[in-house]
Amino acid sequence: MRQSQYFLKTSKTQPSDDPSVNARLLEQGGFVQKVMAGVYTFLPLGLRVLAKIEDIVRAEMDKIGAGEVLMPALQPKENWAKTGRWDELDVLFRLKSRHGYDYALGPTHEEIVTPAALPVISSYRDLPLAVYQIQTKFRDEPRAKSGLLRTREFRMKDLYSFHTDEKDLNEYYEKVAIPAYQRIYRAMGLDAVLTEASGGTFSKFSHEFQVEIPSGEDYIYVCEKCGLAKNKEIFEEGVACTVCGGKKYREAAASEVGNIFPLKTKYSKSFELTYTDEKGKKQDVVMGCYGIGTSRLLGVLVEKYHDSRGIIWPRSVAPFDFHLLLLDASDPKVAEAAEQLYGALQAKGVEVLLDDRDMSAGVKFVDSDLIGIPRRLVVSARSVEKGSFELKARGEGKTELIELRSFEKLLSK
Amino acid sequence: MRQSQYFLKTSKTQPSDDPSVNARLLEQGGFVQKVMAGVYTFLPLGLRVLAKIEDIVRAEMDKIGAGEVLMPALQPKENWAKTGRWDELDVLFRLKSRHGYDYALGPTHEEIVTPAALPVISSYRDLPLAVYQIQTKFRDEPRAKSGLLRTREFRMKDLYSFHTDEKDLNEYYEKVAIPAYQRIYRAMGLDAVLTEASGGTFSKFSHEFQVEIPSGEDYIYVCEKCGLAKNKEIFEEGVACTVCGGKKYREAAASEVGNIFPLKTKYSKSFELTYTDEKGKKQDVVMGCYGIGTSRLLGVLVEKYHDSRGIIWPRSVAPFDFHLLLLDASDPKVAEAAEQLYGALQAKGVEVLLDDRDMSAGVKFVDSDLIGIPRRLVVSARSVEKGSFELKARGEGKTELIELRSFEKLLSK
Repeated sequence: MRQSQYFLKTSKTQPSDDPSVNARLLEQGGFVQKVMAGVYTFLPLGLRVLAKIEDIVRAEMDKIGAGEVLMPALQPKENWAKTGRWDELDVLFRLKSRHGYDYALGPTHEEIVTPAALPVISSYRDLPLAVYQIQTKFRDEPRAKSGLLRTREFRMKDLYSFHTDEKDLNEYYEKVAIPAYQRIYRAMGLDAVLTEASGGTFSKFSHEFQVEIPSGEDYIYVCEKCGLAKNKEIFEEGVACTVCGGKKYREAAASEVGNIFPLKTKYSKSFELTYTDEKGKKQDVVMGCYGIGTSRLLGVLVEKYHDSRGIIWPRSVAPFDFHLLLLDASDPKVAEAAEQLYGALQAKGVEVLLDDRDMSAGVKFVDSDLIGIPRRLVVSARSVEKGSFELKARGEGKTELIELRSFEKLLSK
Repeated sequence: MRQSQYFLKTSKTQPSDDPSVNARLLEQGGFVQKVMAGVYTFLPLGLRVLAKIEDIVRAEMDKIGAGEVLMPALQPKENWAKTGRWDELDVLFRLKSRHGYDYALGPTHEEIVTPAALPVISSYRDLPLAVYQIQTKFRDEPRAKSGLLRTREFRMKDLYSFHTDEKDLNEYYEKVAIPAYQRIYRAMGLDAVLTEASGGTFSKFSHEFQVEIPSGEDYIYVCEKCGLAKNKEIFEEGVACTVCGGKKYREAAASEVGNIFPLKTKYSKSFELTYTDEKGKKQDVVMGCYGIGTSRLLGVLVEKYHDSRGIIWPRSVAPFDFHLLLLDASDPKVAEAAEQLYGALQAKGVEVLLDDRDMSAGVKFVDSDLIGIPRRLVVSARSVEKGSFELKARGEGKTELIELRSFEKLLSK
């Protein structure tokens, strides 16, 4: 991609109304644009990162055999009335059509996925079953804040699982869902701590996945013996570690990157989602739900991976593999060398952003550090004189000189 | 994918409230599920087709150098007030937050993309520029009807282009946008007729792309000399063909699959989107917009490609490459042969739906015809006896016997 033709401009102006690191770097770096409080446009650079995050999530969901669906944002009031949440859920956006219909704007999809399973599940032979979607959600948050960490419109993956009984749900929860979640976070360079949280009215516990970062908005309490954590609410109840019985905890600031709930029969009861068991008896289907905020993850990644100059993307979610800076472009030999390197890398399927703008070297270096593509290449009069280009990893000091004709070395770097 | 574990059940019951072919076959085939009037869930089978349609669209947009963005559904009232459409646009969903904010629910994105371009466009050097998105849109239609053809929530690709003047817009419109659209439709087996439509208040013409189908909800009038069409409104004005001067037209029923508008300076004026020209003078940016309803296309494809038994998907958008039916599964030799063929094809990257359900051959054949995967493979006691499996193209009569060990022949079929 040529930066001169890209829908991208960096900015020197910090957002006036949001002091968070992720809002500052993502807005100034041209990843997102704030439309109003809690609502953002993903610009090409930001959407590339979001798509990579969502591809990692999708690959793991497919691997555990869940089917991908796409449920609507517009949801009928009746479904929400049935579960009692039309009145109870304070973050629910409610709207009226000019024809008198009442709609909820989906903040989550239990009210859709449960009746959706009615024609699909009838016998124990149809279970277990799981579906997921990656989709835009809406919550009427009292206060949007911290960039992409709390917004009114956001992207989310939600997985729902259906089981014959709690034993099967628990096995799925522990042996399928939690390991898949850990693989997802690891793939994007995050160590997520499994954290016990309140289960609400229908279960003893739910679980959050928390990433320790100094700017985190939550506090978690990590068992020093086994590593399982409790969130503040659970910790204050003062019980020993559920897994190992340990009683020593360390406190850490953290940011939530996912949460999972054993829903049990709460929603299947509302929609009469039952199955016939092996003895021919009707039973309630047991359900679980598993969320990951994918746009929120983009914010958390920036909170974790940055320095004073800008973002430092982990490779697996970086918008491009290489940022190729063309300096001294007025020299035709230099411009040609950069174009050749750019073309050769693209031909190998490598993702390269070519900074071919008519700007000073200083501006290009500053912008490159801000945008945070993990590896920077420089083609300049000085490098071309040596038949070479420079390679430098973002966040590291060392610059390496590589011969132009040996560019393929980059592929293994 | 194993059908026994897929979130899919076909149905023998026709939808009671929608006589359209696409609603009937997509609902009965388990592609979509109606949530309420004009609002659907895409089930795994339907989402696969939608994703293939959107991938075809995305590839062409990338090819013409447009940057992909993702703009929000929640949009501030002020932006819509600025263009006058808050009051004027009758299909606009309007909602209030509990905190008093007024939002529009995006039916289109001129009110977002135009201000989004303010920080990006300042000089003639920044132009031309184009961005697109593939995203969910909302319209408060007075009457949702005809399955996926007219819904209140739908998927759409919208491209917006920015130019220095009308000449550049017209060139882009004719040499870039229209050819890209024609490639998109051809890639999914549709012949779309370029059709002149009203340009509204700000342009002489806009254009629709119309696919001739007997069940089409529009009538178009195709110039017998050059093939350019007029929609009913324009045709009734009675003028000769704009391109060739021809005066003979044939009438055809058709369904709209895209429309494009020269917006000129309508929206740039509202948001003061200007650029500085080569002489240092401020000028209004000239814009165009280009839409394709991707979920609507799914419906149009079914209206065009079906027979009395079900859908016949064009290969490029089919949910799977092959539908592999396992008959006589109680015979371990037969089951093993089917599993081996399934595994071997998957290892080659071929997309196969394996019907491994405990059902009769009759049910499997009926369901397979309904779902419409273009090529059907059958492994049965009879075929295995001959060391073979059967291949049959959907919609054709001829069955071919292929040796199991020569399955790779399928890859070139």
